Amino acid sequence: MKPPVTAPDVYASVRDGLRRVEETLHELRPRDFPFLERTLDHILEAGGKRMRPAIALLAGKLDRYELDLLVPLAASIELLHSATLVHDDVIDGAATRRGRATANALFDNAATVMVGDYMFAHAAELVARTGNIEVIRLFARTLMAIATGELHQDMSAYSYGQSTRDYFNRIAGKTASLFATAAEGGAMIGGVAPAQVAALRSYGENLGMAFQIVDDILDFTGDEAELGKPAGSDLMQGTLTLPALLLIERQPKNNPVKQYFAGRRRAESLRRALEMIRESDILDESYAVAADFRDRAIDALAALPGGEARDTLTELAHWTTQRRA
Amino acid sequence: MKPPVTAPDVYASVRDGLRRVEETLHELRPRDFPFLERTLDHILEAGGKRMRPAIALLAGKLDRYELDLLVPLAASIELLHSATLVHDDVIDGAATRRGRATANALFDNAATVMVGDYMFAHAAELVARTGNIEVIRLFARTLMAIATGELHQDMSAYSYGQSTRDYFNRIAGKTASLFATAAEGGAMIGGVAPAQVAALRSYGENLGMAFQIVDDILDFTGDEAELGKPAGSDLMQGTLTLPALLLIERQPKNNPVKQYFAGRRRAESLRRALEMIRESDILDESYAVAADFRDRAIDALAALPGGEARDTLTELAHWTTQRRA
Repeated sequence: MKPPVTAPDVYASVRDGLRRVEETLHELRPRDFPFLERTLDHILEAGGKRMRPAIALLAGKLDRYELDLLVPLAASIELLHSATLVHDDVIDGAATRRGRATANALFDNAATVMVGDYMFAHAAELVARTGNIEVIRLFARTLMAIATGELHQDMSAYSYGQSTRDYFNRIAGKTASLFATAAEGGAMIGGVAPAQVAALRSYGENLGMAFQIVDDILDFTGDEAELGKPAGSDLMQGTLTLPALLLIERQPKNNPVKQYFAGRRRAESLRRALEMIRESDILDESYAVAADFRDRAIDALAALPGGEARDTLTELAHWTTQRRA
Repeated sequence: MKPPVTAPDVYASVRDGLRRVEETLHELRPRDFPFLERTLDHILEAGGKRMRPAIALLAGKLDRYELDLLVPLAASIELLHSATLVHDDVIDGAATRRGRATANALFDNAATVMVGDYMFAHAAELVARTGNIEVIRLFARTLMAIATGELHQDMSAYSYGQSTRDYFNRIAGKTASLFATAAEGGAMIGGVAPAQVAALRSYGENLGMAFQIVDDILDFTGDEAELGKPAGSDLMQGTLTLPALLLIERQPKNNPVKQYFAGRRRAESLRRALEMIRESDILDESYAVAADFRDRAIDALAALPGGEARDTLTELAHWTTQRRA
């Protein structure tokens, strides 16, 4: 197994593009509205991994590397992602994300909903700068998929009747769709052949699945300092992820997740759920599922011309399943 | 003065287009997600006036009348409008709108935020069907203006230090911007000359201002049966509109609006504020301001070729200041 790579190393070949993405995100803050300027600063400097813009830039680097069109696309995708997180935090009532106070903990919910809307609008304006109607429609359909995925998650909260299939559908909408759009959109702007656009979409989709599964594993294994949120956060919000679903599958009776959701001795049930998951081979099995998606992502790259961009996309896939936070 | 016309009469010349707008709005409900299907049904059948789509269609009828492009634009604008209302109701915690339960009174806030996002996404997808990048960018900038206007309204709630200028700026963003976009977007799709596009934008902007001022007047004069919400709703939400601002200007001391916002004998202060506004000439003055904007809207139409579409836009402007609900 290769030693873990850190995301910044992976990004070396698109560092120029990523710097311009940061500039674009910085420039969109309205100078004439100090509240909104500060709020966007707070949200956009929250130290995301910038994975989605990196994927868009890399996918756009396989043929012509037109940064003037790729940068607005990549910035738009990061902004769309951040906007969904902002609305997500309103919904969850989350107080921290990535170890920092969320916007809705600092401001009221009302303002936070509108700030998210403002960010969606700006993301739409940025993607329109690509001048590519197909990319714009892709962008719109992705927001539909994300909203639908989040709705499904919200509606299935605290319901332990759901299957792993429901879980995969949910994360396909809520997470993998935007990874797929980053890769596909970048490829479309980059001007590669249709079969290669499809291959990159498949890469993004599978990478997004792997990414979300690892995220959901880290929620059980990570500690608060690394994650910026307490372990077991998903369960605390009623969200069943792969490890918890596997625990329910394996031990349907006297299951601490069910007991926790049913409100029985909550602190003790949560502690026992975390312990059982950590001490079983459930996490290994979950990692194996993530690795399957990662491998499918890497396999999809076979259709693409070799070179630095393809190598970096491969490395990024490895990093996705090896990361600790 | 002409006798009041009812909106449906005004729309006769674009009835074909409006019917297709309704069909488009109906078709976008996802059949594979019953919750979302029902929710959208509830929201979109709430009986809006469909003024914005009518304006888009009329503006697009001055030259070529390309319904295949105008209908997606008009539907997109109505959907964007409805989505902002949905988020608005989350923010206000409103239980009714147009006499019907709001989405967030029926479902939880979390789901309602996501349903609004889904509607934004669909609106973006619809506007992309026009294939016109300039119209798409206009659409995105309009959502920015609306979100900014709503944020200003939220941040200025319960603050009686604001001026009528602040009020005009707020309603320009929150309401007039979308009327302007309906008229400008329709004109762009309709293929009229740039000077006529600008004239239609000015029409929309001024009509939107008149519309919102009348809306704010009706909040004081209408009764619950007509409005579908209790009289004085705006004050109850801390929103200062033109009549209340004029009352503060005229009687800065011992002012019932200030007393109401300060929480002093609230029921009595509110009753007294409504009474003072209704019994003074403040409502006449507010109507005069609305009529000024209406006249500017009608004046802008002078730049356009005469005919049924222009006549209808004129009638619509008259209806805007004569309507009772």
